[in-house]
Amino acid sequence: MARSVDIDAYEAGVLAGDRAMLGRAITLVESSRADHQELAQELLLRLGPASGDSVRVGITGVPGVGKSTFIEALGTMLTGRGHRVAVLAVDPSSSRTGGSILGDKTRMEELSRDPAAFVRPTACGRMRGGAARGTRESIIVCEAAGFDVVIVESVGVGQSETDVASMVDFFLVLMIAGAGDELQGMKRGILELADAIAINKADGDNIARAEAARTQLRGVLRLLRPPMDGWTPPVEACSALAGMGIAELWAMVQEHRVRMEDSGARGDRRARQAMRWFEHSVEEMLLERLRTAPGIEEERRALRARVVEGAVSPFEAAERLVSRAWPRDTPENQETKGKDPR
Amino acid sequence: MARSVDIDAYEAGVLAGDRAMLGRAITLVESSRADHQELAQELLLRLGPASGDSVRVGITGVPGVGKSTFIEALGTMLTGRGHRVAVLAVDPSSSRTGGSILGDKTRMEELSRDPAAFVRPTACGRMRGGAARGTRESIIVCEAAGFDVVIVESVGVGQSETDVASMVDFFLVLMIAGAGDELQGMKRGILELADAIAINKADGDNIARAEAARTQLRGVLRLLRPPMDGWTPPVEACSALAGMGIAELWAMVQEHRVRMEDSGARGDRRARQAMRWFEHSVEEMLLERLRTAPGIEEERRALRARVVEGAVSPFEAAERLVSRAWPRDTPENQETKGKDPR
Repeated sequence: MARSVDIDAYEAGVLAGDRAMLGRAITLVESSRADHQELAQELLLRLGPASGDSVRVGITGVPGVGKSTFIEALGTMLTGRGHRVAVLAVDPSSSRTGGSILGDKTRMEELSRDPAAFVRPTACGRMRGGAARGTRESIIVCEAAGFDVVIVESVGVGQSETDVASMVDFFLVLMIAGAGDELQGMKRGILELADAIAINKADGDNIARAEAARTQLRGVLRLLRPPMDGWTPPVEACSALAGMGIAELWAMVQEHRVRMEDSGARGDRRARQAMRWFEHSVEEMLLERLRTAPGIEEERRALRARVVEGAVSPFEAAERLVSRAWPRDTPENQETKGKDPR
Repeated sequence: MARSVDIDAYEAGVLAGDRAMLGRAITLVESSRADHQELAQELLLRLGPASGDSVRVGITGVPGVGKSTFIEALGTMLTGRGHRVAVLAVDPSSSRTGGSILGDKTRMEELSRDPAAFVRPTACGRMRGGAARGTRESIIVCEAAGFDVVIVESVGVGQSETDVASMVDFFLVLMIAGAGDELQGMKRGILELADAIAINKADGDNIARAEAARTQLRGVLRLLRPPMDGWTPPVEACSALAGMGIAELWAMVQEHRVRMEDSGARGDRRARQAMRWFEHSVEEMLLERLRTAPGIEEERRALRARVVEGAVSPFEAAERLVSRAWPRDTPENQETKGKDPR
């Protein structure tokens, strides 16, 4: 599919806000095929000047916290105010379980039908971090297509939150009242990424518990280093179902944005993020090159077994594995390393 | 120095508990020179059977928290009970500032003179994670030399805590009363590594504040996933200066040990740690190979600049950098990847 359209058609279609072309362009940037990637990188370069101006909001929370209802409430409020809202959902589980994050037809039903909104799950690449790269580049495509708010949703149970926090201007962690047990399933360190926390489902009998959770979480956040100088992440209660607290949360996102723009922190944050993605991609590629080297996985399994039984140190085992996949074969390398080839 | 002694002398000296040879063996395993490393790996294999039986305790805390006083109090208590105690201090700053962690002569003065104790800073390798490898392997050397308690100290402000937590059976985080501000300097996520927290300097006017900090930290820890099933990390107050609470903390370490041994969790933890060190070493070596490839650092700088100005995507830049250092040159590779060479 991706091949049947040329780069000019992709560019024109996305810039004109054509939804079908937007969808195809995202499929293209998500693809791990070499020819698709070449086209995708060229497209991203062309779309670059038209991108970068949206408010990028990451939203995470464990299953059951009400993310879909929350994003639907926030998204429809925003389109009602004239914004154009794109929702990208990172779903690391979809490729394994076969169940898509949007398989449940009731998810974001209203927003999905809203002409000013665009809701799209991100396919999971084979490469670790591959889904994240696709999502990050999809943000650029959505911005070029005229969306001024891009919401990136992630399930708060894996690696994806760190990735998502590294591609947005504002990272919101959704929790529910009566925390304690529910938080146990949450990935370690996730609170430390938050620019704000919202305690959802603060309605009916839950209001008192939400207030208690809020106090407790405020105490926790005071112990952590703030994500931006002078910004202590607020903890607010809301009810996506009752539509309560959503406007206040959005006002908070806007206040954060104004502060970031005034201080130049947004540009700094995005430059840092780009550097992080560069370094991250380098690491991923090195690991991927190792993983796909001929015979390496068998060798790795054999070495792991020998490490566990103490027959070889972890360091020595690593040296053997890496040297096999990436031989020190040039005279320059040997000179630089001052090492004897083994 | 390392070369003038042969492997048999190292082995015999360490196994006999010869302190001079122990020191030289640690220097050897810490060395990043290829010939030293070859000798070191052989020595570690030989010492393997005599190692593994100590209680490995990691202790971390920001500067000012009283780590030295604490370790001195704990160490002398333990040697008084007949234990042989090795203290390895990871000091990531020493190589940069020129100031050693043990430069301050008042640090662990008593313990340093104790014939049943061995106190030693770990030199910082050039390779990221190099110091950690040296420390991890030094534990094995100390165990082979007959030390049945090995304490690994780290300054709680960098990468080193994660590394230290991954080489010990019990990871103790030291804090002080009146936390709040003091904790701000602490590395994110450090609480989540703790098997226990000790609030030090709980003496005099500080007792009430220590108690308040204790309650607060207990609340925080309840929100985090426990490091071992059925073990909620205790938070205890102590005063290393007054010698209060030290025996109780040690009893806690022992209780933890018994539980780990009964459930088989210690073997599992150590196997997991060995696997982690293997994978970690693989990543480090790949990055090191990239870093030392000819001309790569100039290329990296140029690409970083182009990424920040948006002239190339982070992913594309990474692809160019990695391909330059590690060319896809074998037909097998191209086939496996299904990629056109660029």
